[in-house]
Amino acid sequence: MAIKLYDLRLKGDRRPSPFCWRAKFALAHTGLAWTEVPIGFTDKAALAFAQSTLVPVIDDGGTPVKDSWQIALHLEATRPERPLFKSTQARAFAEFASGWTDQTVHPGLFPLLVADLYDKVEDKDRAYFLETRGKRFPGRTFDEVQRTARESAIPAFRASLHPARRALGTGVYLCGEHPGWADYALASALLWCRAVSSFKPLAEDDALVPWFERMLDLYDSMGRRAPATS
Amino acid sequence: MAIKLYDLRLKGDRRPSPFCWRAKFALAHTGLAWTEVPIGFTDKAALAFAQSTLVPVIDDGGTPVKDSWQIALHLEATRPERPLFKSTQARAFAEFASGWTDQTVHPGLFPLLVADLYDKVEDKDRAYFLETRGKRFPGRTFDEVQRTARESAIPAFRASLHPARRALGTGVYLCGEHPGWADYALASALLWCRAVSSFKPLAEDDALVPWFERMLDLYDSMGRRAPATS
Repeated sequence: MAIKLYDLRLKGDRRPSPFCWRAKFALAHTGLAWTEVPIGFTDKAALAFAQSTLVPVIDDGGTPVKDSWQIALHLEATRPERPLFKSTQARAFAEFASGWTDQTVHPGLFPLLVADLYDKVEDKDRAYFLETRGKRFPGRTFDEVQRTARESAIPAFRASLHPARRALGTGVYLCGEHPGWADYALASALLWCRAVSSFKPLAEDDALVPWFERMLDLYDSMGRRAPATS
Repeated sequence: MAIKLYDLRLKGDRRPSPFCWRAKFALAHTGLAWTEVPIGFTDKAALAFAQSTLVPVIDDGGTPVKDSWQIALHLEATRPERPLFKSTQARAFAEFASGWTDQTVHPGLFPLLVADLYDKVEDKDRAYFLETRGKRFPGRTFDEVQRTARESAIPAFRASLHPARRALGTGVYLCGEHPGWADYALASALLWCRAVSSFKPLAEDDALVPWFERMLDLYDSMGRRAPATS
C-alpha cells in the first residue's frame, strides 16, 4: 500500500510547505512511492488521525507519522535498505542542518516572500493565514514587510547561507558526493519560495545556483515539475 | 620530527585562539605529537616562514601550513591512517560546522568576552589589539561593549547554539558516537572564552554543558589542563 502524504496546497496546485518538501525528498531518497492528499491551511480535521494540526503527516499503511523529522526517522527505521543517514555522524549532520535551516534560513526568507505567499493562499484559508502569520509582524501589512525586506534584508539573507556554501565547496552536494538531508532541508526552503514567488533568493553568481538546479533535477525532476511562480 | 605549532599566548600562558584550538584538536585526533611555539599578537616575523601573519601555523618537518582548515586538510592528506573526516559527507559536515561557527558563534561570543580578553593581552601587544579589534566597535570601549553584551545579548547567543544542541540530541558528541570537527570547532570557541574569562557562555541546564565537559576531558584532558580564568 502506497504511503499517503498530506501536503499543503495553495491556488494553482502550488505546494509551498518546506517541511512537506523535506518529507517528499525523504520518501524519494528511500525509493518509495507515495500518493499526495492536498489540503488547505484550515483542513485540520484531515490530520486528526495522526493527532496533528500541521502538515506533513503520512499514513504508512495504517501507521500515522507527523513532523518531517519524525517521518525521516520512521523511514530510516522501517526501510533500512536505502538509509537516509547511514552513520551516526550523518544523522548528526542532518540534525545540525535542520536546526540551522529552521533557525536561520526560514526566518530570513519568510519576510522576503510573505506577501507573495499570502496572495496564493486559497480564499477560504486567508483569514487563518492573516491571523497566524500576521502576529509575527505586528502593525505591519504583509506587503510592507515584504517590500522592506527586499529593500534591506537581501544581503544579510544571502550572507547567512555561508555554511551551506562552505559545505558545497567545489563539490556536488552539501552532503558531499550524494545528496542528503542538508541538501533536502535547504532545497525545501528554496522550493517554498519558488512555489509562490518570482523573487530570486540567490544572487546569479552564487555557487548555490547550480546546486539548486541539480536539486530541482533530482528524483525525476520532482522539484522542477512542481507548479512554480515565475 | 615532531610538528611545531605556532600558538597565540596571553599573560599567564593563556592560549585563547579558537583557530589554534582547532589545530590542536586536529593534531590530537590524528594521534600526533607536537611542540608549541607560543607567540604574541605582534610577533608576525615568527610566521613569515609560512607566508602568514596569523596563527595557527604549523611546521611539519619543514613543510609550513597556515590556517586551521588547511592544517586539517594537510593532516588528512598526509596521515590517512587516522582520518579526521573519513567520508565526503563527514568533510562536508566539517565545512558546514566551520562556516557556522565562524559566522554565528564567534561574532556572538566576542562582545561577551572582549574586555576580559583585552585584559589578558601582553603589554607589548595591547596597542595592536586595541587598533585591530577596536575597529569592530567604533566609538565604544571594550568595557562598554562587554557590559552591554552581557546585559542584553546572552539569550540570543545561547539561542544561536540551537543547531549544535540538535546535533547533540541525546548523543555523546555533535558528530555522533565519536568526536569530530563540529565538536572541535564549537569547543574551540568555548575554550577561547574559558582561557580569558570567568563568564559562562552556557546556561547551567544546557545540554551542551556536559558535552563541553567531555570535550575538556578529551585527549588526556588537553582542554582542561590549559590555563583558564575562573
